[in-house]
Amino acid sequence: MGRVIAEISMSADGIVAGPDTSTEHRLGRDGDLLHEWMFEGTEADAEVAARLFDGAGAFVLGRSMFDMGVDPWGEDGTFKKPCFVVTHRPAEPVVKGPTTFTFVTDGPESALRQAKAAAGGENVVVMGGGTTMRQFLRAGLVDELRLHVVPLLFGAGVRLFDGPVGDHVRLEHAAVTETPNATHLTYRVLPPA
Amino acid sequence: MGRVIAEISMSADGIVAGPDTSTEHRLGRDGDLLHEWMFEGTEADAEVAARLFDGAGAFVLGRSMFDMGVDPWGEDGTFKKPCFVVTHRPAEPVVKGPTTFTFVTDGPESALRQAKAAAGGENVVVMGGGTTMRQFLRAGLVDELRLHVVPLLFGAGVRLFDGPVGDHVRLEHAAVTETPNATHLTYRVLPPA
Repeated sequence: MGRVIAEISMSADGIVAGPDTSTEHRLGRDGDLLHEWMFEGTEADAEVAARLFDGAGAFVLGRSMFDMGVDPWGEDGTFKKPCFVVTHRPAEPVVKGPTTFTFVTDGPESALRQAKAAAGGENVVVMGGGTTMRQFLRAGLVDELRLHVVPLLFGAGVRLFDGPVGDHVRLEHAAVTETPNATHLTYRVLPPA
Repeated sequence: MGRVIAEISMSADGIVAGPDTSTEHRLGRDGDLLHEWMFEGTEADAEVAARLFDGAGAFVLGRSMFDMGVDPWGEDGTFKKPCFVVTHRPAEPVVKGPTTFTFVTDGPESALRQAKAAAGGENVVVMGGGTTMRQFLRAGLVDELRLHVVPLLFGAGVRLFDGPVGDHVRLEHAAVTETPNATHLTYRVLPPA
């Protein structure tokens, strides 16, 4: 049975996108620094990045992340698995080569149900952004939380934990991979006590 | 020459004190969970906790932290080194056995100057809380940042990074110690590019 993995890159002060987001700077000012480890990191970083796709049968993301990512993700849509976009605005599916983005307007539980069905027993990966991550955590839908902590203090921008995620969610430390570019933390999310 | 080390325990969602702080629950609801690693942790946790005091010649803390801590710290004041409390309210020094708390009303730079003079070449440790940490980071006064990340999502409470810390402060990953109770991250704070 697949797990539900929530995975996101953030600065040491919990920022997931820089200030002043715009169509030119979709991740905000210097927001690209949060993802450099994926593209210009060490071999250990590359292994961590590959793990994102290993065993993933479907992806869930928020509407802002889709809007931000769909162009940079290119003609094949990068994920090459069914992707479900949590949104309030209904839209027709977007097909990018082997990647189909389906828009889900009836909440995170519904998105997860559809993603699980599409994943066929493989993992469902919740990719962000912050709002979607918090919705999934708050609803108790996440089995594993992976935080890629980049050695920067942004000081301003979009905060991951800028809203409720549930009350005292207990985590269990599962693994840490340490590189000069990021500290990759993996936690199991424990059921409520 | 001593370094300036800023050191604090926080949950994985960046909370340094639980919600509903009061005189009975000085660290807020369940806030004690953030410091359990110090008292009920593994041998590795104990070594990390001891490092707080090794080489420390003086301590700096905020007024709220003093108010919160002075009773639990006991008759010897725990630190046994000169402590400087950054505050707006002038007050006479408080002496607890070998520990003297001096109140500094003219800002973090002044507190640091006095702490450095008192430390006699040893390190100055900035202990928190959040406001004091942010003041020191923002003023570029910190050489090393140690975050003890406890495997919990509090969801609410006092956030460490709930205000400016400077713009894109670059950190350098120095060390990580991983235990079931906390991920102890040590960063060097780099000078502005």
